[in-house]
Amino acid sequence: MKAIALLGGPNISWPIDIKDKLIKAREKGTFIIGVDRGSLLLEELNLTPDLAVGDFDSLKKEELLRINQSVSDIRYSVPEKDLTDTELALHYAFDDYCVDSLSLIGATGGRLDHFLTNLFMLLKPEFRQYAEKVQIIDQQNYISFLNPGKHVVKRIENYTYFGVATLNEVQELNISNAKYNLAGYSNTNPVSLSSNEFLPDQDTFNVSFKKGLIAIIQSRDLERFQNIQK
Amino acid sequence: MKAIALLGGPNISWPIDIKDKLIKAREKGTFIIGVDRGSLLLEELNLTPDLAVGDFDSLKKEELLRINQSVSDIRYSVPEKDLTDTELALHYAFDDYCVDSLSLIGATGGRLDHFLTNLFMLLKPEFRQYAEKVQIIDQQNYISFLNPGKHVVKRIENYTYFGVATLNEVQELNISNAKYNLAGYSNTNPVSLSSNEFLPDQDTFNVSFKKGLIAIIQSRDLERFQNIQK
Repeated sequence: MKAIALLGGPNISWPIDIKDKLIKAREKGTFIIGVDRGSLLLEELNLTPDLAVGDFDSLKKEELLRINQSVSDIRYSVPEKDLTDTELALHYAFDDYCVDSLSLIGATGGRLDHFLTNLFMLLKPEFRQYAEKVQIIDQQNYISFLNPGKHVVKRIENYTYFGVATLNEVQELNISNAKYNLAGYSNTNPVSLSSNEFLPDQDTFNVSFKKGLIAIIQSRDLERFQNIQK
Repeated sequence: MKAIALLGGPNISWPIDIKDKLIKAREKGTFIIGVDRGSLLLEELNLTPDLAVGDFDSLKKEELLRINQSVSDIRYSVPEKDLTDTELALHYAFDDYCVDSLSLIGATGGRLDHFLTNLFMLLKPEFRQYAEKVQIIDQQNYISFLNPGKHVVKRIENYTYFGVATLNEVQELNISNAKYNLAGYSNTNPVSLSSNEFLPDQDTFNVSFKKGLIAIIQSRDLERFQNIQK
């Protein structure tokens, strides 16, 4: 079973046609999770989440009542806790509901301390086992994570570029079958090797490394973002 | 002399009233840099940059001609180079123009491989000396960087929250005079400790650490981002 979680990030960064995509996903049996305010945002899309996780302290009384009346599984988190609401959602999705994959929507845009919390959470030892099953998706980016080993990365349809971001110490990183290849790269510090591209006639590239956690960021330009503010 | 650089990130993420702010900054003697497409975006705001850096390969012929005719100092970068255009701008600003500080606008939003490249660049040994003089600013976030030592962080006006993101191995991190304090925290992996707050009657908090590079992300919610897409 696949899962999608909607977080509280600004909806302007959500993938286009999110409502249609969520409806189609649910029809195919995808498990839908609301993380804190994301639970209300799902309700507002007329999509009651299968699971709601959060402390909900930013919701008004009537908003929380709405969640309480409609959602069958609500897990309340404690403010000032060790795990964030998103980390708790990850834990419940994989450990209680045994989902095969989890896509996070609303994890980007807005407050960057939140985005970085989500980006770095898979570095935590308790979540490393799920790293390759988690994606962070927004309108311009599709982020997946890789643990050490040899990997063939597939192009996401309509994505032009990819970046390889090492999130901690990386050893012996190799990139091949790409526009810019790399051999035996090591770095104790994170780095984001951006603006790489799939070869014109290829829909995969190869990446391998011996130590570290890597984020593969497939991305694209959106012309419509330009010329809005002048 | 202060400096501001405009990068190619989507203008929807730029600080509000950017044109007025740039005009006022220039009147006070601030040095204005265009990084690649950012040079054209400055021209379109009727603000010719003092320095333009980039390979400009995404510009049309007539757009590049416009830059060429108006900007007095243009530094062309070579595609497939080791340093990004933003890193080159940092180098020219601090080493050639001896600026005291550099604020990066247009470094966020859009493609996240680009944002992470900008976030992680100050980890590079050649740029660590400038870390505390660089800020990444957008509509909701004000990111500054700290090298090891004892620091008093001042609240940026109208910002509610702050996160402390360790960008590499951190040792003995302490946070005090804040809503959530921390003592003797060490971690080999990056982590973003988000949603902390200044104390109600305080405009500073204290942070100290012995090893690592830290990003302080002051942030705020923007209600207007909600309810745009339904």
